[in-house]
Amino acid sequence: MRTLSVTNDRKIVMLVIDGLGGIPHPDTGKTELESADKPNLDALARKSVCGFSIPVLPGITPGSAPGHLGLFGYDPLSYVIGRGVLEAVGIDMEVKSGDVAARGNFCSIDSNGLITDRRAGRISNEKAAELCEKLNGQKYEGIEIIVRPVREHRFVVLMRSDEPLNADVTDTDPQQTNVQPIVSIAVSPQAERTVRAINYFTCRAQEILAKERPANMILLRGFSSMPDIPSIKSIYKLDAAAIASYPMYKGLARLVGMKILSTGFTTGDEIKTLEDTFSEHNFFFVHIKGADSAGEDGDFERKVKVIEEVDLYLPQILRLKPDVLVIAGDHSTPAVLKGHSWHPVPLLLHGPYCGLDNTLSFSERSCLVGGLGTIPATSIMPLAMANALKLGKYGA
Amino acid sequence: MRTLSVTNDRKIVMLVIDGLGGIPHPDTGKTELESADKPNLDALARKSVCGFSIPVLPGITPGSAPGHLGLFGYDPLSYVIGRGVLEAVGIDMEVKSGDVAARGNFCSIDSNGLITDRRAGRISNEKAAELCEKLNGQKYEGIEIIVRPVREHRFVVLMRSDEPLNADVTDTDPQQTNVQPIVSIAVSPQAERTVRAINYFTCRAQEILAKERPANMILLRGFSSMPDIPSIKSIYKLDAAAIASYPMYKGLARLVGMKILSTGFTTGDEIKTLEDTFSEHNFFFVHIKGADSAGEDGDFERKVKVIEEVDLYLPQILRLKPDVLVIAGDHSTPAVLKGHSWHPVPLLLHGPYCGLDNTLSFSERSCLVGGLGTIPATSIMPLAMANALKLGKYGA
Repeated sequence: MRTLSVTNDRKIVMLVIDGLGGIPHPDTGKTELESADKPNLDALARKSVCGFSIPVLPGITPGSAPGHLGLFGYDPLSYVIGRGVLEAVGIDMEVKSGDVAARGNFCSIDSNGLITDRRAGRISNEKAAELCEKLNGQKYEGIEIIVRPVREHRFVVLMRSDEPLNADVTDTDPQQTNVQPIVSIAVSPQAERTVRAINYFTCRAQEILAKERPANMILLRGFSSMPDIPSIKSIYKLDAAAIASYPMYKGLARLVGMKILSTGFTTGDEIKTLEDTFSEHNFFFVHIKGADSAGEDGDFERKVKVIEEVDLYLPQILRLKPDVLVIAGDHSTPAVLKGHSWHPVPLLLHGPYCGLDNTLSFSERSCLVGGLGTIPATSIMPLAMANALKLGKYGA
Repeated sequence: MRTLSVTNDRKIVMLVIDGLGGIPHPDTGKTELESADKPNLDALARKSVCGFSIPVLPGITPGSAPGHLGLFGYDPLSYVIGRGVLEAVGIDMEVKSGDVAARGNFCSIDSNGLITDRRAGRISNEKAAELCEKLNGQKYEGIEIIVRPVREHRFVVLMRSDEPLNADVTDTDPQQTNVQPIVSIAVSPQAERTVRAINYFTCRAQEILAKERPANMILLRGFSSMPDIPSIKSIYKLDAAAIASYPMYKGLARLVGMKILSTGFTTGDEIKTLEDTFSEHNFFFVHIKGADSAGEDGDFERKVKVIEEVDLYLPQILRLKPDVLVIAGDHSTPAVLKGHSWHPVPLLLHGPYCGLDNTLSFSERSCLVGGLGTIPATSIMPLAMANALKLGKYGA
């Protein structure tokens, strides 16, 4: 891809509707997309090629990180983002090569040291921020330990040292109650120094939090380092920008080297940002979170409404005349399943050279006759690039 | 898959109709599935997602072993079952790690030692059993040589020793007449000891059979060892059982660690076994042999009848309320071709979360609009697992 990609003025917009795909509502036999009133999306589908993307592999339900990495063209089985790094990136913390990040929970322990509540009663953001401040800034064997609050009982621990640290260590979070937090163990010899800092930090945290209630202890899991991901610029020669309101998706976009544009919380805000910055970049990742949140909540109607809202904004996007518009999802989130799922994700690609197919609307049923077929999510970027005439010929 | 799979009570039935797929009869333009009167299968297809599986790769005609390994979720290009091991497993012989198995033929040679008939006139099962008894039980350099009859002129030679043997040796069967049997050669140095035993055994066999007619010599081929296959339990955490009447399919199921349930020879017997044992396992491989046998015989009508018989038993299977029902084939066996073929195999997946598609019946033509698309056979197990909610999320 590096050797084939060329630069030109053409602009690609990748509109990601998080959790886009669904399965039929048992009462109506229709999916969320099929239930939505979306004349603009349907009209666009008739002038586009449609199909499905498989985020990872058939049957595999992806988390947000592998879901987005696939859309950005990175094999999610080769590039693994650990929980700790994802949490750090999700609150806009810079994670450098050689750092180790972990997801932390404030928890409650009894006088015997047994965990009574893994989430310390979901303490308030304010309280958690105050406790993180107390834990933050320690040093051990030259390792700096940075602690930042996420939300409620959740926080991030980032360890940094001049000499690279190694994340090959076990969790201290037993993921159950009535047992003690676990001492972390180095799985590889290179992680010995890291594990000493982790266990030191946990002991110190217990001392510091001793008089707090209910958050009198911490649990750490998902120790991970930054994977070595080549930037989207180095691969596709794109000047890529991300428009996303949720920190995690900004973080994932930053991970592949996109510029993060500041925007507001609504779809309207995001489309306004797209309009305002459209002349400045040649690739835009626009992230719509609402469909996934509604699906996760099992709220079929709200997911339908989110799709209908995207439909209302579609003419505004089209008025910008992007050379290639991709509408995709990082995974399906059927409201019926109240969570991410393995189902293939509807996909639409629009551009002057996209070819044709038989799709009459944008839905799970109609995409079955789409001209793109069912493709790995990692094929979307090359297809978008090709349709923007940004990929040269392979081979003589 | 190992790290994602979880256990729950949900039950998966994988009904394998051996040689399921076909091509149109030249007179009617209809395939075997399209010619069959199968109201139950067609009704089920309308409530399921359908598609096709590719057993190995497009254009590749699989044998029974790769066909089934793919269905069980194992890449048939990575896990290769040699001819010798397959024959041994097919007659229910235990093959241990370090054993070497070969397929044997009784043959006829003339006074110059030239092969006149590679199958010794297809001697009777009784005669072959008698000759195998004469050859059985020899020892050479601590290697035990076990000989068991298969059918007619076919037998199995299994070599076993305390020190693992190596199957990297050449065949003694030249696969033509008017030449002598070939002396086996060690292709790798580790196989030197094995090859000495093989050539000793062949010489001894010639002496023992010298006065027999027509079976006065043996030919050996397909020397192979047991591949190191992780069990279906270790990968999918399933308590898997196999219902199959033919030894080879029991053998293949045993190879991946399924429990073999005793059953009778008819489809009715097999479904009865499924009913009787349904509470005891959470995965059932049910093997229907008749469609393949009919296809191999070029008997289009009989293959249609086998499919119609399966259709009659389908309501009995559905009454058990499996959470996920997969109907698949290990490969196509078009009666027109009188043998296995490379054609994609119709596939049906039924379950409460299977989603939807446009299939109106279960056939080669209607599966083209199926929601599963055309997938590698190795994706069937992950999809069945996902639909039984037995696979966790991949990645953060």
